[in-house]
Amino acid sequence: MSLVRRQVERMSGYIPGEQPKVAGLIKLNTNENPYPPSPKVLEAMRGAIDEKIRLYPDPTSSGLRAKLGKIHEFDADEIVIGNGCDDILNLCVRAFCGECEKLAYFWPSYSLYPVLANIQGATQVELPLDENFQIKVRPDLLSKLVGVKLVFITQPNAPSGVWMQRVELQRVIEETQGVVVIDEAYVDFASENCLDFVREYENVIVARTFSKAFSFAGMRVGWAVGPRELIGALNKVKDSYNVSRLSQLGAEATLDEWDAFQQNVKKICATRERTTSALVKLGFFVYPSQTNFVFARPPAPVTAKQWFDGLRARNILVRWWDADRIRDFARVTISTDEEMDKFLEATKEICQAD
Amino acid sequence: MSLVRRQVERMSGYIPGEQPKVAGLIKLNTNENPYPPSPKVLEAMRGAIDEKIRLYPDPTSSGLRAKLGKIHEFDADEIVIGNGCDDILNLCVRAFCGECEKLAYFWPSYSLYPVLANIQGATQVELPLDENFQIKVRPDLLSKLVGVKLVFITQPNAPSGVWMQRVELQRVIEETQGVVVIDEAYVDFASENCLDFVREYENVIVARTFSKAFSFAGMRVGWAVGPRELIGALNKVKDSYNVSRLSQLGAEATLDEWDAFQQNVKKICATRERTTSALVKLGFFVYPSQTNFVFARPPAPVTAKQWFDGLRARNILVRWWDADRIRDFARVTISTDEEMDKFLEATKEICQAD
Repeated sequence: MSLVRRQVERMSGYIPGEQPKVAGLIKLNTNENPYPPSPKVLEAMRGAIDEKIRLYPDPTSSGLRAKLGKIHEFDADEIVIGNGCDDILNLCVRAFCGECEKLAYFWPSYSLYPVLANIQGATQVELPLDENFQIKVRPDLLSKLVGVKLVFITQPNAPSGVWMQRVELQRVIEETQGVVVIDEAYVDFASENCLDFVREYENVIVARTFSKAFSFAGMRVGWAVGPRELIGALNKVKDSYNVSRLSQLGAEATLDEWDAFQQNVKKICATRERTTSALVKLGFFVYPSQTNFVFARPPAPVTAKQWFDGLRARNILVRWWDADRIRDFARVTISTDEEMDKFLEATKEICQAD
Repeated sequence: MSLVRRQVERMSGYIPGEQPKVAGLIKLNTNENPYPPSPKVLEAMRGAIDEKIRLYPDPTSSGLRAKLGKIHEFDADEIVIGNGCDDILNLCVRAFCGECEKLAYFWPSYSLYPVLANIQGATQVELPLDENFQIKVRPDLLSKLVGVKLVFITQPNAPSGVWMQRVELQRVIEETQGVVVIDEAYVDFASENCLDFVREYENVIVARTFSKAFSFAGMRVGWAVGPRELIGALNKVKDSYNVSRLSQLGAEATLDEWDAFQQNVKKICATRERTTSALVKLGFFVYPSQTNFVFARPPAPVTAKQWFDGLRARNILVRWWDADRIRDFARVTISTDEEMDKFLEATKEICQAD
């Protein structure tokens, strides 16, 4: 008899995008920010590397929660900090959806959700997005929502990058008796957000990250905002000291440099629009993106796999999944104009060679 | 109906020791190391605060695993790195013990174990230690081990600090059909360890931390070593990017400075022996400690609570629990000689005042 829980033994773990150590690689595969953190953030972090490293961090990241609360107009006790946004998503499963209870997620979206459901032994309910990656609340969707304890919604969606209509999302919230987690990992690149749903509904949590817009993926800081009762439950199930001293301090310094980071976001959005136009000109189909990546289908006869392989051969890494509904596309992180030019040049070569 | 899982709603979270921000406080309550990390570690960390912070960390902490493997003579794939040792303990519950399955732990010991069992909805099996905080394998203990999926053993024990006899621990391993996790959080201050059990048995995992002997509590790095099959299961259930870039790098730099840290350990052990002798002279009962703390009972009529309060009034923080079997004692972290002298002076005052 195996020593490992049956559902863990049977499942596959989440497969993160590669983090290769090859020099000169153009890395467009894990949606990192191409711009460094503000010099003031780096300076603040360097200044905090002292003998205090020997002491445990603040278990509740109270300084960071206070700053986030002030910026987004919530109370600090409506906020919880995670060791990255993945920590937050995992805590939501732990707090709201037990073994054999129903965990729903829209699909295609972030492939971590079914993995988290598997670990918990929760019953997975896949809610299909339509061909435009939009939610459509039809009777079959409503029937699937019955008895669901937890719903994950990526807004804007990944891997498509599209903004999903708020009115449909709102109907999902209203029709769900369980908790709805809106995973806004990419929302800093969008023109809207869903924080108002947290104020309006008792069952909504919004999850955010410092990894994308704030160039802080290496330090692992995510957060969630929601009703006190739900945040209190997340606090009970989180590791006491889940966020390191330097991660807390660096994230606080980041918030003090808000404007500098918004400039980076603007640049990335401009590069995204330019990249999209260039791809469309090359005959690609590109979903309208509200994120820091584009999801694009090459023109026939070039397949997404050929495009992916061709880029890789040219030392450019993008993300491609051999999975239903998305295997005709690849996901490309938006980097600097310079790197995107090289990517577009390589893409042109690949299309012309075929 | 509540939106929170019933067992999470009913349970209390783990209560960490206070991390107060009062200046001038002598902090002997959470077993931190009084000595700073080696200057070379701090230097290496400062040097790594650059634009790479924007990139995700190595998801498997491969450099750190390789170094630990070399030092302790294991393969890198027999090792997993956690966001602190608490992360490791939580992952063990997730991987090895399902809802309503039996999770056992010796008692009194680390109060996180029952909390982790509660979160998982596991059935708790408390295995009492004897009056000397030793394991005694008697028929009633053996019957409690039947059907257990996971056993936590803190070796050396906390909060008593005692080293538990290996022969009894070995019998527990042999009599358990599930996984036995030996939580060696404090083992760097002991004269023995249990790593050989990992080599000898297929169901043993040893968990370790950088927080105590390596002055790295603020950065959250723990690890576990065990059979490949079990470590593989922990890898499946862990967050992909669970350890930050700087935490990985700092822990690696720490291992390069092994001798410097062993000097700190020696100093702490010497101070521990001196503190124990001084307390015994004042009439205290002190368990023989193999850790960086002592567990001591004041002489009548002074109660542990009075001692704790008296120290607190003098700006000295130790740990006291209002719980069965341990409420007559307080746990005192070993700090520098200077701080321990102040602690002993205050203790003397409190005892004489009564």
